Amino acid sequence: MALALTMGDPAGIGGEIAAGAWSALRETGPAFVALADSGWLSRYGPVQVVAEADDARFADALPVLDVPLASPAQPGRPDTANAPATIASIERAVRLAQSGQVSGVVTNPISKAVLQSAGFAHPGHTEFLAELTGASGREVMMLASPLLRVVPVTIHLSLRAALDRLTTEGIVCVARATRAALVGDFGVAAPRLAVAGLNPHAGEQGRMGTEEATLIQPAIDRLRAEGCDVTGPWPPDTMFTDAARKRYDAAICMYHDQALIPLKTLDMSGGVNVTLGLPIVRTSPDHGTAFDIAGRGIADPSSLIAALRLAAEIATRRAST
Amino acid sequence: MALALTMGDPAGIGGEIAAGAWSALRETGPAFVALADSGWLSRYGPVQVVAEADDARFADALPVLDVPLASPAQPGRPDTANAPATIASIERAVRLAQSGQVSGVVTNPISKAVLQSAGFAHPGHTEFLAELTGASGREVMMLASPLLRVVPVTIHLSLRAALDRLTTEGIVCVARATRAALVGDFGVAAPRLAVAGLNPHAGEQGRMGTEEATLIQPAIDRLRAEGCDVTGPWPPDTMFTDAARKRYDAAICMYHDQALIPLKTLDMSGGVNVTLGLPIVRTSPDHGTAFDIAGRGIADPSSLIAALRLAAEIATRRAST
Repeated sequence: MALALTMGDPAGIGGEIAAGAWSALRETGPAFVALADSGWLSRYGPVQVVAEADDARFADALPVLDVPLASPAQPGRPDTANAPATIASIERAVRLAQSGQVSGVVTNPISKAVLQSAGFAHPGHTEFLAELTGASGREVMMLASPLLRVVPVTIHLSLRAALDRLTTEGIVCVARATRAALVGDFGVAAPRLAVAGLNPHAGEQGRMGTEEATLIQPAIDRLRAEGCDVTGPWPPDTMFTDAARKRYDAAICMYHDQALIPLKTLDMSGGVNVTLGLPIVRTSPDHGTAFDIAGRGIADPSSLIAALRLAAEIATRRAST
Repeated sequence: MALALTMGDPAGIGGEIAAGAWSALRETGPAFVALADSGWLSRYGPVQVVAEADDARFADALPVLDVPLASPAQPGRPDTANAPATIASIERAVRLAQSGQVSGVVTNPISKAVLQSAGFAHPGHTEFLAELTGASGREVMMLASPLLRVVPVTIHLSLRAALDRLTTEGIVCVARATRAALVGDFGVAAPRLAVAGLNPHAGEQGRMGTEEATLIQPAIDRLRAEGCDVTGPWPPDTMFTDAARKRYDAAICMYHDQALIPLKTLDMSGGVNVTLGLPIVRTSPDHGTAFDIAGRGIADPSSLIAALRLAAEIATRRAST
C-alpha cells in the first residue's frame, strides 16, 4: 500500500523535494501518492494523475490525486488564496489513512503564518492532525535520526511558557507514549529512556534550580514504578555525546530547543518528525517551507526521503502486530 | 615562559590528566609547572620539585611548585580538609601570572560543593579568578573547540533565573568582550558574531515569545551601530549545523545549555573553557572533577591538553601585541 504525501505550502520547497524523493525511491520504494495540484507538481518532475491511491505504477511517474490550487503558485511568494487547498490536502490524506487506502501520511511543510491569516486556528500541523483523528491532547512529537531520538515534553511555546507548563504528569505521559512507540513502531523490545534535567548541570543538587527535585525526579520515580527502564535527570549538556547516546533509545527533553539543538546539530538533513499517539502513521521532514530557496532547484530532499522510509517502516510494523 | 597548572580537587582526575598532558607535551610543549602536592602528583608520573616556575627541563619530569595537602588524597573521596590547599594553588597561580613568572593559568577542575563546605563563597572558579585579578563583573566564559566557539550571556543560574536576568546590556557587554578576544587572543582580524534567539524558532515573529524583539534585536542594533559584524537573532536549533557554523566565528548564546549542548555534542573532549575579560590568560578543561572515575587510570587528558595549547597560543598572541 502506498503512503500519502501532502502538498504543503505550494510556494515552498514541497514540490521540489517530492520530485527528488520520487527520483530516489522510484525503483526501491516506498511508493507514495501526492495529494497536490498536478499542474504545479509537474513543474518539478513527471507526474501521473490517478483516481485512487494505488492506481499507478510508481516507477513510471509520481502519482497524484489532484487537489487544485485556487491561484498559480509562485515559488517564495506564499498566497493565502491557496491556504484552502493546502488544508484540503491534509484532510484528504488523513481520510485516506483512516479508511485504509494509504498506509500512512507524510506531510510537506506548511507556513502557519499563511494558514492562520486564512483562518487556520491550530497551533501547528501536529495539533491539526490530532484533531482530525480524534486524538487531541495525546499527540507527542518525536524527532528521529539514525544518531538520536528526542521527544520534547513541551513544544511550540516560548521558553518562559514552557517552564510554566512543565509538569510531572506531562513528563510521565510523554515518556509512556515514547516507550509504547519504541516498542510498537520502532521494534525496540526493551526501550531505555533517558530524561534530561531542565537546569545547567541538572540543577547541581538544587544550587541551580529545583525542578529536577520537584518535577522531574517524581516523574522518573513513577515511571520506574510502572516498570519503565528510565534514567535521569541527566545534565543536559553531556547527555548527547557519542558515548552518552549509546546508553538510551530515546531522550525525553524538557523543552523544544533542548531536544532540537542536539538533533539538528548532529544530523541536519536526516532528522524525521514523527507524531506519536495518533491512530494513523504520520511523519514529516524536519524542516520548514524554505521560501527563501524555493524554486531554485537546490532544496535537499534527504529529510523527506527519510520521512517516507520511516513512515513505511512504522506502517509495516503496525500492520504485522 | 611556562604556564601554571593548578591542582584542582586532589580527589578528582586532576593528577592523572596532568601526568597525561605532560607525557603528550614533554617534547613539543607548551611547558607547564604544576602547583600541587608533589607526593600526590608523583603517584601519576615522574615529577621534579622546583623553587621557581622556570627552574626545570620540562622534558625530564613534570615540574612542581609544592603546595602541600593537609590530608592524604583518596581518589573519588573528596575531603574538605584539603580545600585550603586547592584554593592556595589557585591563588599562587594567579600571583605568578600577575608578576609575569608564568605566561598564563590553566585550572584543573574543582568541586564547588567541597570548597563551599570549607567556606569558599564564590559561585565558581571563574568568579574567584575575576576577584583575585580585580576584574569582577567583567569575566566572560567562552567554550572553544576547533569546531565551534560559544559564549553564553548567562552562566551558572537556573533556567528560570537566566530568563529573568537576560538584558540587552548583558548581551551587548558579552558580545563586545567576545569581539575583543577574537581579535586580540584568537587572531581573527574581522570577527563575525552570530546571536542566538531565546525561544523556539527565534520566537517566530512574536508567536512564541517576545524577547527577540524586546531584548535581543536592540542589542544587535547597538552592536551594529558600533561597527560590529553581527547577525541574528537566529533560530537556536539550526544555528549549529555544519553549514551554519561556517558563517560566524563565535555564537553569543542566551543561556548555559544553549551554548554547551551543541559544543559538547559536537566535541566532548576537545572543548576548552576560556575566561575572557581578565588581565591574565586563563583556560581550563571543559569537564569536572569526575570523582566517579578518579584513580582508575581511564581519565582522558585531551581537554586539558587542548586547554594548555590554547593558553599558550593566547599568551603568545598577547605578548606580541
